[in-house]
Amino acid sequence: MKILLSGAAGRMGRAVAKRAAELGVEIAAGVDAQACELPFPCHRSFAGVTEQADAIIDFSRPEVLPELLAWAMAHHVPAVLATTGYTEAQLREIDRAAQVIPVFRSANMSLGVAVLRLLAMKAAKALGEDFDIEIVEAHHNQKADAPSGTALALRDAICSVRPLRTVYGREGRQAKRSPDEIGVHALRGGTVAGEHEVCFFGPMERIRLSHSAENREVFAAGALRAADFLRGVGPGLYSMDDMLEIIM
Amino acid sequence: MKILLSGAAGRMGRAVAKRAAELGVEIAAGVDAQACELPFPCHRSFAGVTEQADAIIDFSRPEVLPELLAWAMAHHVPAVLATTGYTEAQLREIDRAAQVIPVFRSANMSLGVAVLRLLAMKAAKALGEDFDIEIVEAHHNQKADAPSGTALALRDAICSVRPLRTVYGREGRQAKRSPDEIGVHALRGGTVAGEHEVCFFGPMERIRLSHSAENREVFAAGALRAADFLRGVGPGLYSMDDMLEIIM
Amino acid sequence: MKILLSGAAGRMGRAVAKRAAELGVEIAAGVDAQACELPFPCHRSFAGVTEQADAIIDFSRPEVLPELLAWAMAHHVPAVLATTGYTEAQLREIDRAAQVIPVFRSANMSLGVAVLRLLAMKAAKALGEDFDIEIVEAHHNQKADAPSGTALALRDAICSVRPLRTVYGREGRQAKRSPDEIGVHALRGGTVAGEHEVCFFGPMERIRLSHSAENREVFAAGALRAADFLRGVGPGLYSMDDMLEIIM
Amino acid sequence: MKILLSGAAGRMGRAVAKRAAELGVEIAAGVDAQACELPFPCHRSFAGVTEQADAIIDFSRPEVLPELLAWAMAHHVPAVLATTGYTEAQLREIDRAAQVIPVFRSANMSLGVAVLRLLAMKAAKALGEDFDIEIVEAHHNQKADAPSGTALALRDAICSVRPLRTVYGREGRQAKRSPDEIGVHALRGGTVAGEHEVCFFGPMERIRLSHSAENREVFAAGALRAADFLRGVGPGLYSMDDMLEIIM
Repeated sequence: MKILLSGAAGRMGRAVAKRAAELGVEIAAGVDAQACELPFPCHRSFAGVTEQADAIIDFSRPEVLPELLAWAMAHHVPAVLATTGYTEAQLREIDRAAQVIPVFRSANMSLGVAVLRLLAMKAAKALGEDFDIEIVEAHHNQKADAPSGTALALRDAICSVRPLRTVYGREGRQAKRSPDEIGVHALRGGTVAGEHEVCFFGPMERIRLSHSAENREVFAAGALRAADFLRGVGPGLYSMDDMLEIIM
Repeated sequence: MKILLSGAAGRMGRAVAKRAAELGVEIAAGVDAQACELPFPCHRSFAGVTEQADAIIDFSRPEVLPELLAWAMAHHVPAVLATTGYTEAQLREIDRAAQVIPVFRSANMSLGVAVLRLLAMKAAKALGEDFDIEIVEAHHNQKADAPSGTALALRDAICSVRPLRTVYGREGRQAKRSPDEIGVHALRGGTVAGEHEVCFFGPMERIRLSHSAENREVFAAGALRAADFLRGVGPGLYSMDDMLEIIM
Repeated sequence: MKILLSGAAGRMGRAVAKRAAELGVEIAAGVDAQACELPFPCHRSFAGVTEQADAIIDFSRPEVLPELLAWAMAHHVPAVLATTGYTEAQLREIDRAAQVIPVFRSANMSLGVAVLRLLAMKAAKALGEDFDIEIVEAHHNQKADAPSGTALALRDAICSVRPLRTVYGREGRQAKRSPDEIGVHALRGGTVAGEHEVCFFGPMERIRLSHSAENREVFAAGALRAADFLRGVGPGLYSMDDMLEIIM
Repeated sequence: MKILLSGAAGRMGRAVAKRAAELGVEIAAGVDAQACELPFPCHRSFAGVTEQADAIIDFSRPEVLPELLAWAMAHHVPAVLATTGYTEAQLREIDRAAQVIPVFRSANMSLGVAVLRLLAMKAAKALGEDFDIEIVEAHHNQKADAPSGTALALRDAICSVRPLRTVYGREGRQAKRSPDEIGVHALRGGTVAGEHEVCFFGPMERIRLSHSAENREVFAAGALRAADFLRGVGPGLYSMDDMLEIIM
């Protein structure tokens, strides 16, 4: 597989290149508005790209989208969009491109988090109302928001199967749990990159499903996997769930 | 739902009755070769049963099988068989009965363990070869065999998706892991009822799926759930996996 | 060691007898206002006790205290008081008895919880302000109060070393952790007997100290250990911490 | 506190500088045989150092030792030696210097691991023979040796309190645990930087003490803490245990 790497000079672009090298995947070329010294040809815009590629991986900025999609459609190359912050108009642009080529878009490229979300949904369905569900997440002490976006996405996925009311902490003499609650607990401290655990507490038994990210390189691995996935599908807009559904 | 409880005076029979009471499920009657004082009518054999039931739950002994199946077929009542140690001939008897009535049979009635096994298979498929898999189990210090039957069943389920060679421990200067290994580690100590964890160690991220049993009452809960499941299906032989497949 | 077991017919009394049998410790006799069939002589009051004992273990009621202490002082037998709910006057009575005989009193007889508390204090001291501390506890879904008394006692022990402000949950866009916080998170669900974990999140590393109780028999084990401890000390009032300080 | 950083251009030297900046500790100067561009003066040898310092931190090579110790003794500056691989003769040199100045030496500068080791010893002492001990460690799939040196050091520390026979895995029909065993289980997979857990399984309760390292920067933090510790002590040779003993 040959990759055209958009945003090649950025932190995530470099992480993709590093991970690709580990996997023996070739970076045919990079694109980045910034000049960059990299072990592969790097162009300042898509206009300069002459190399062939099996997929584009994009960790750049929303404003790159038009030229990226134009190039991808012109050369019939699938695109993995890991950039966030698109406008509504840009999202419609993506939809249109997805009628011509396979496009993969996800705000969180971690394969593990996507797997955890699907497993948590399946477990919630299988275990049913005998089991109480609580989510615990931990992040570094500089994180501003609580709970994490990923914890809330896990909660939403579980609640799509079994509607529950969220509780963000418990305190008091009369704090007994109601059966329609789901607790979401945000631990903060140190330099924790990101941990998420979904607990199912049932009669005399428990199941815990957890994910732990060591650092941001997990997103590079997920993007490469998505690129590989796109080689086997037709035009359309795909997400982590589509990729996993086929696998699972 | 009304249950006819076979083996009502035994330890597991009493656990089923206790759990049924908690769930508001009625035990219509019990059957046990031993005389028993119980809060419902208890017969010494199926011949004496006059009560109506929606399902039989059996935690007795293999020798009870013929009269149990005869009664079940005569009254068109589904049967949950949680007894172990059947002979080949008895297993054929069960198959024949399953052509007439729904029969559920499983050596491990824990819903949670069945769910863990399915989740582990799905995770192994979704995460692929980038992830190394290790199983850790813990049981009390009187357990004779290691690893536990459940740990080996988890290993088998994972290996049905991704064939791996089992390693039961590592020691030495040259003990580097091979990519086709699966480690199975048996912790022993204290009075631990049973814990199983499947670890998926990948590039920069990890997933852990774990089950913890508090005591044997989990099997009672699983049997009641199986009884409920049988009410919605036709004749046939069912297992934990069938029940979960429909749910998941 | 021979034990005189006060409250022998109660749930905890029976747990002590069971655990003593496992350890080969003799229950010389029991005392219980209720008539009781037990595998050792059982008296309705201390007045009837003629057996010799090395220690009294008491899991009864506060009103038993006067005759218990009178008997203990008259026969110079140390006493382990695991009963709770004493009045101020009764606590003074205990103090007076402790001038004559060794008396052990604790509201929580679990050795493990006492060890966890001491370890958490030592870790808090050793790790210092570079580490953020969070406590997570889990209990069954019928528990009324949150966090658990034990979690608050852990918090108090840690704050005696390093004063911190308690936070019982986090939610919102601007929920960044302050360095003087300690998070205490109460998970509720299923039939969890009791789990407590103290997390120390530091720069690039973490320590977690956790305790898990399987059921109430842990208190029996702790009481027997306390009885053994009393054989080696002089008159005085002792607690779990005294016992552990000598050991640690 | 002002630090003289030996081995300033190396990976660990840079980690110390980064961590010092975070803590507001000043790096007065660096020493490194390699030329280095750093945000503080950097000398090619100790001969060139003119800056004042409160402590030396050394992450260089054994051959730097003579000039380092000469400079330290001449200027009465304490030294933290985090370099490994000293010869016997060099160790004697260190002993001699420690008669004149405070010297701190440790092969593992992680504060957390040192704390875990001490806590595990204390727990082993306090919990006694009722508790079975098992160690579980996890490292990346490229690690050659198993169990890790740190796991074996934990085992040694525990066995100094309570002699136990090491078992590195269990398999078979007749694999019942003996009371004098300690299990040490080495998990391998993915990119795990290093996890160690000591489990105490007792009657009806368990304690788990665990440490998780995110990356090598933990050693930088430990070295800075050691430098701070040396400011308050007299001449002598100190280790992590001495530092923690005073704290704990």
